[in-house]
Amino acid sequence: MAKKQLKVCMIGFGHAARALCRLLLDKAEEIYAEYDTEILVTAISGRSKGSVMNPSGIDLEELLCTYNLTGKLQITGTPSIKGMPSTVSETSTEMQIAKEASLKNDLDIGALGLIDHCEADVMIELSTLSIMDGQPAIRHIEKAFDRELHVITANKGPIAWDFQRLSALAQERGLVFLYETTVMDGTPIFNLVKETLHGCKVLSFKGILNSTTNFILTEMEKGSSFSEAVIEAQRRGFAEADPSMDVDGWDAAAKTAAIANVLLSANLRPTDIRRTGIEGITAEEIRAARADHKKIKLLCEGYMDQGHAVGLVHPVYFPDSALYSTIDATSSILSITTDLMGEISIIEKDPEIEQTAYGIYSDLLTLIKMTAISSVAHGEA
Amino acid sequence: MAKKQLKVCMIGFGHAARALCRLLLDKAEEIYAEYDTEILVTAISGRSKGSVMNPSGIDLEELLCTYNLTGKLQITGTPSIKGMPSTVSETSTEMQIAKEASLKNDLDIGALGLIDHCEADVMIELSTLSIMDGQPAIRHIEKAFDRELHVITANKGPIAWDFQRLSALAQERGLVFLYETTVMDGTPIFNLVKETLHGCKVLSFKGILNSTTNFILTEMEKGSSFSEAVIEAQRRGFAEADPSMDVDGWDAAAKTAAIANVLLSANLRPTDIRRTGIEGITAEEIRAARADHKKIKLLCEGYMDQGHAVGLVHPVYFPDSALYSTIDATSSILSITTDLMGEISIIEKDPEIEQTAYGIYSDLLTLIKMTAISSVAHGEA
Repeated sequence: MAKKQLKVCMIGFGHAARALCRLLLDKAEEIYAEYDTEILVTAISGRSKGSVMNPSGIDLEELLCTYNLTGKLQITGTPSIKGMPSTVSETSTEMQIAKEASLKNDLDIGALGLIDHCEADVMIELSTLSIMDGQPAIRHIEKAFDRELHVITANKGPIAWDFQRLSALAQERGLVFLYETTVMDGTPIFNLVKETLHGCKVLSFKGILNSTTNFILTEMEKGSSFSEAVIEAQRRGFAEADPSMDVDGWDAAAKTAAIANVLLSANLRPTDIRRTGIEGITAEEIRAARADHKKIKLLCEGYMDQGHAVGLVHPVYFPDSALYSTIDATSSILSITTDLMGEISIIEKDPEIEQTAYGIYSDLLTLIKMTAISSVAHGEA
Repeated sequence: MAKKQLKVCMIGFGHAARALCRLLLDKAEEIYAEYDTEILVTAISGRSKGSVMNPSGIDLEELLCTYNLTGKLQITGTPSIKGMPSTVSETSTEMQIAKEASLKNDLDIGALGLIDHCEADVMIELSTLSIMDGQPAIRHIEKAFDRELHVITANKGPIAWDFQRLSALAQERGLVFLYETTVMDGTPIFNLVKETLHGCKVLSFKGILNSTTNFILTEMEKGSSFSEAVIEAQRRGFAEADPSMDVDGWDAAAKTAAIANVLLSANLRPTDIRRTGIEGITAEEIRAARADHKKIKLLCEGYMDQGHAVGLVHPVYFPDSALYSTIDATSSILSITTDLMGEISIIEKDPEIEQTAYGIYSDLLTLIKMTAISSVAHGEA
């Protein structure tokens, strides 16, 4: 019997996307053996890096090699599967997309045009997060649903800004919409509730969810000033050149909104979260806290108040003996309180970019399992 | 369309079984609405408490009420579903079981006879744990598989002693075998790996998994002697009259074997675990540890060594700043190290008997979902 194929369109080609490509290369044989499926990346849009498309599957080994040398997305004409000539030449498709882009005068047409033409089964949204409106990721997802593509988003913007509407869109069209990696990388938090806590209702949650601020606070406990800690976070790659989205609590607020939307069935936006960042915390306050055997952590919280979901992000003092005081540097924790199982916490220790890639990979395997079940149910076995 | 029925045979009627009955009463409507299924408990064996059977469904409200008054399992003749007369009278079935019991001269025939006659869909194994051989629970499960019943075990004995063989038996017969509640109550640990960490391989694990010893150590940190702490644990219901199975590390060893068998695909028995309990720990050692800002915890560990699974249970010193030092009293933690997701920890805080009942309930819902998928796949939709 012929193996099944899953054609993937990737929007974005940053660190996580490249780590995902490496993981897909490593795991190709295992997926083939275990899931009877070949995952083919057929289209990638990398904004300034260009776009590539090959309906027979892009040779990821070659692509990564070329990218490392040139910083550009480029593929040669030879399709990656031997004996199967490419049905669409990349050059003509790129020209077509470029033409549409100029016609529509839309800077974003690169990604949208690619989603329109790629004829993939799933779109993976990996574009740069715009925390203040969730765009252009939301438009990418709408376009993918329009073209009957399943969607996996690693970008938390759409979950933080527009989860209920996008979920309903997916459901209407019978498409799968997955987002495990948007909070705590590949650590299962949404799937923990959905797949393992059947019949449990989440009543509230709290967590330490922004690694940049947690790293900065840990560095300050070791004696650094706030600005020294920020510079060290930037040097280690945990903080952006402009660290304000993390430091002011916006990233934590987006995660809080995302979790509230999924686990509390809320319809919050990051701007609805009561938010205090760590920008006002001084080295002196940290020293005083340490002398008092306390730590300051940027806490995210969500709960129901008279039928309405409430989210907040604020610095909180924890005694050294508290569980939350042991979550240092880039580690993170989420605690959920449920009606039937009381309080459960899950901790991710010292994640690297590979753990982000794993989250997306895990969603891909979930998609393969879900579509296999649904095709059996529809008699396509 | 007629709702589906799931007929349940319960072996054992201790605290967890009774909490499960209460939960099934509370959730009957919700299950009916969400899963299109009515869960009917049709047979219960309670060893010295007697056995009851009603193929139309035992009235659990009445049963619990009578049990609270008399300490015996008793039901009246009226079936719980109006308009459907009982096809087998309890009296005649009980007589038949009693007859077989005397013929076979087997003290255990009560439970085995009931499994033989109950014609249920699933057997829930809740009998008293025998940590030194996993019996009679293993025989109950074998009998259930023989009679084509799915099995949910809340009893860790069979998982700690005979997991691979029992799993293979279930698979051969196309039956479901679930055991989430055997370690850390309803906290998902086996399902965490099976349902949410697709494609991840568990390389090793560690945890604080025995609440009795953890409670005793926490009491000793507050100033109690070992024997005072044991008495307090007994008074609060955390320790047996003979506390040696907990204190000597046998319960922790059984959990370590169970986790190794499931998550490391091992074939260990509790007697294969390198085991040191807390019986030798003095109040003086605890005081010295506290003075040194350390805590002693009974740690369970499992890992692979040259292709072989190794399990150990031993007291370990942790600095106050360590995550494991914050897991006090009856709380528990499991950390797993995986190839793709690094280290993830999951924590259960202050569980009560309701969290054990939830674990079994969660397995029942998993069973309903799995059999629904399989009947769709077999065209029985």
